[in-house]
Amino acid sequence: MFNRILIANRGEIAVRIIRACREMGIETVAIYSTMDQDALHVQMADEAVCVGPPKGKDSYLNMENIISATILTGAQAIHPGFGFLSENSKFAEMCEQCNIVFIGPDAHMIDLMGNKSKARETMLKAGVPVVPGSEGAVGDLEEALKIAEKIGYPVMIKASAGGGGKGMRLAYTKEEFIKAFNTAKSEAKASFGDDTMYIEKFIENPRHIEFQILGDSFGNVVHLGERDCSIQRRHQKVIEEAPSIALSPELRERMGRDAVLAAKSIGYKNAGTIEFLLDKNGNYYFIEMNTRIQVEHPVTEMITGIDIVKEQIRIAGGLPLSFTQEDISIRGHAIECRINAENPGKGFMPSPGTVKGLHFPGGFGIRVESALYEGYRVPPTYDSMIAKLIAHGKDREEAITKMKCALGEFIIEGMDTNIDFLFQILHTEDFEKGNIDTSFIEKHFSLGRA
Amino acid sequence: MFNRILIANRGEIAVRIIRACREMGIETVAIYSTMDQDALHVQMADEAVCVGPPKGKDSYLNMENIISATILTGAQAIHPGFGFLSENSKFAEMCEQCNIVFIGPDAHMIDLMGNKSKARETMLKAGVPVVPGSEGAVGDLEEALKIAEKIGYPVMIKASAGGGGKGMRLAYTKEEFIKAFNTAKSEAKASFGDDTMYIEKFIENPRHIEFQILGDSFGNVVHLGERDCSIQRRHQKVIEEAPSIALSPELRERMGRDAVLAAKSIGYKNAGTIEFLLDKNGNYYFIEMNTRIQVEHPVTEMITGIDIVKEQIRIAGGLPLSFTQEDISIRGHAIECRINAENPGKGFMPSPGTVKGLHFPGGFGIRVESALYEGYRVPPTYDSMIAKLIAHGKDREEAITKMKCALGEFIIEGMDTNIDFLFQILHTEDFEKGNIDTSFIEKHFSLGRA
Repeated sequence: MFNRILIANRGEIAVRIIRACREMGIETVAIYSTMDQDALHVQMADEAVCVGPPKGKDSYLNMENIISATILTGAQAIHPGFGFLSENSKFAEMCEQCNIVFIGPDAHMIDLMGNKSKARETMLKAGVPVVPGSEGAVGDLEEALKIAEKIGYPVMIKASAGGGGKGMRLAYTKEEFIKAFNTAKSEAKASFGDDTMYIEKFIENPRHIEFQILGDSFGNVVHLGERDCSIQRRHQKVIEEAPSIALSPELRERMGRDAVLAAKSIGYKNAGTIEFLLDKNGNYYFIEMNTRIQVEHPVTEMITGIDIVKEQIRIAGGLPLSFTQEDISIRGHAIECRINAENPGKGFMPSPGTVKGLHFPGGFGIRVESALYEGYRVPPTYDSMIAKLIAHGKDREEAITKMKCALGEFIIEGMDTNIDFLFQILHTEDFEKGNIDTSFIEKHFSLGRA
Repeated sequence: MFNRILIANRGEIAVRIIRACREMGIETVAIYSTMDQDALHVQMADEAVCVGPPKGKDSYLNMENIISATILTGAQAIHPGFGFLSENSKFAEMCEQCNIVFIGPDAHMIDLMGNKSKARETMLKAGVPVVPGSEGAVGDLEEALKIAEKIGYPVMIKASAGGGGKGMRLAYTKEEFIKAFNTAKSEAKASFGDDTMYIEKFIENPRHIEFQILGDSFGNVVHLGERDCSIQRRHQKVIEEAPSIALSPELRERMGRDAVLAAKSIGYKNAGTIEFLLDKNGNYYFIEMNTRIQVEHPVTEMITGIDIVKEQIRIAGGLPLSFTQEDISIRGHAIECRINAENPGKGFMPSPGTVKGLHFPGGFGIRVESALYEGYRVPPTYDSMIAKLIAHGKDREEAITKMKCALGEFIIEGMDTNIDFLFQILHTEDFEKGNIDTSFIEKHFSLGRA
């Protein structure tokens, strides 16, 4: 196992990884930008190296400096966390060339899954359901109609060269399709000088369901169940939970099997997430794979008892998985809220500032992941997420009430936060009943205002 | 179910109970002494009533005022927490007379188990093993010797009127016994003018093993497994854990069955704890029953997923247990450290003060139970325990490393604490190996100093 790991990240995820390393008896090296010299991850690590000025590209994305820091401090591996360099195949390759273990999958897997059309193709071949479509350009109306009928309405007609909604039409029936196809084609010609068209099934108000995967270097792949991340604002997840109440045991088994199949088909190694859209009829479609640890990994940890970050490190260290699919069991229900320094009343404008007062909630089933401390200045330069609050209860109802209570106890003074907004979401009847899909926030809150 | 509960306690346990009530949708009434008006439990409750001046007997033990506060605020039940009035049968009776539900067992059960000799007698009758002894006074050497041989060496010879070690002798063999008995008898005569003697088996360096019990009003009794509370200082528990590594599955089952038998034999209702001494040969002896929630209840909650405080409230509200013995399963290992405002270097002298800086540890498996907040003045009047830190890992080793890391992250400025002392205990080889018994602290730390 490694003696020393460099953590190429900041904030709560850097703290999370440092804790995992400490518990494994592994020394840690933090990196930081000149703006982050007082950050908690810098204080907690055994050693810390400044890798550049505040801007991401100069510091947390500065591959050369990070590799140098790793070599200079004698770290044998780099944990990239999420964001920054976590899905950068070039960086993973640089690590390999420098004999540093990148704690994640191999560079070519990152590449393969990073390219959406290649990923789609790979999954199709493996037999994992993807959003049905024309597989490339369609010719005239007659051919297009044949495909539309085959994949079933509603379908989306899209211009290959499209963007900004131009040359795009939604059709719920054959009649609508016939009317819309040529209009869209003309619009595409007029807008882009190119009327190449393709067709995709339109998934109405789907749920975002993702499966956590772990694969080792010996070909073993397991899934740790699903997360429901349907509560999103502008494709950013806001609240995540596990398990999803939309999945019957049979559907869970089927999707889990497909998620494992997806990972196995590319010989996937380390932690990853297979993301699906799930429609109202129980049909699901692969959309993408994330080849890194995710923000919402704690909800899975709470219900399975498995420490995903430690597993990442073990796998990267060459150890086999210490459990099989049958060993994994689910206890209770967990919810995570992302707490951001932002003002929901002002279009969710970021609201950095100095922490003037801080009180973490506590008690049974409450977990806080944060790099905040009293007096810390949240910089304006990076992501606005300042804490994650996780509540674990015996069932969904208890997890929700625990989360409500814990949000009520959480005090962060010195900046605006979205705590009240999260509170409001949790108190809607639809959320309480589990009537959630990716349009939830749009539907319940007038755009940009809470 | 109740609409409103009064909490007749303060500090972290009052906060713990308030959280449980909130999660159950039950309003809370706090009580406080004039010294506690700024306390967290007062701020968190829906209503708060001052019940008297600082001294316990004037406020938190002031039965009349507490009953009045309950009636005035329209609370239907009182949760006594631990300490204070929690094992006061007179108070439980007063509640009953005033039509207030006392969240705990009936007054006569408190009485029965509060009297050690009555409790011992009851358990003997029920067939639960107790520390073997002479069952009252023994006559001359010949009779005494017969009993000593029967219960087996080592035995303790004790003067009925004894105290301060006078008239007390330990004998490991028949020869020692013969020599010691008459000496002790003479000493007793000289010291107390009474040479009535009795004999008890001496349990050498036992472990303190206790079983958590839950019983409802319908005669259902289950146990939630054991806690090992062997790390004690002057009979005060310092570190507790669950499960105990000293118990084989067979022994656990046997002790658990006896614990349930003990509770059933008196028709016990609500949460309680059956305490045993466990010797090196796997023999165990009932010592007492605690008829209330205990400080160390969280370790059991972590590994079973069952919220014991909520169960107490449900039982008191007349609901049956929602699970059977077979439904209860254990996940992982949990450890609790009691964090006190005291100075281990000065004989553990209490060290009250104002919280000048505060940082709670966080992350996976870490639970904090505390009523501290920045600026809070810890009063000198009450118990010095200011927080409980609980770590839950997949096994004992992981729980210990998590606890070490979390203790390292815990910052409390403005007073002395025992955090370093706890840290030292966790780092001893014997603790890490699980070689613990009730003499652990005496053995490893010179008396009164850390």
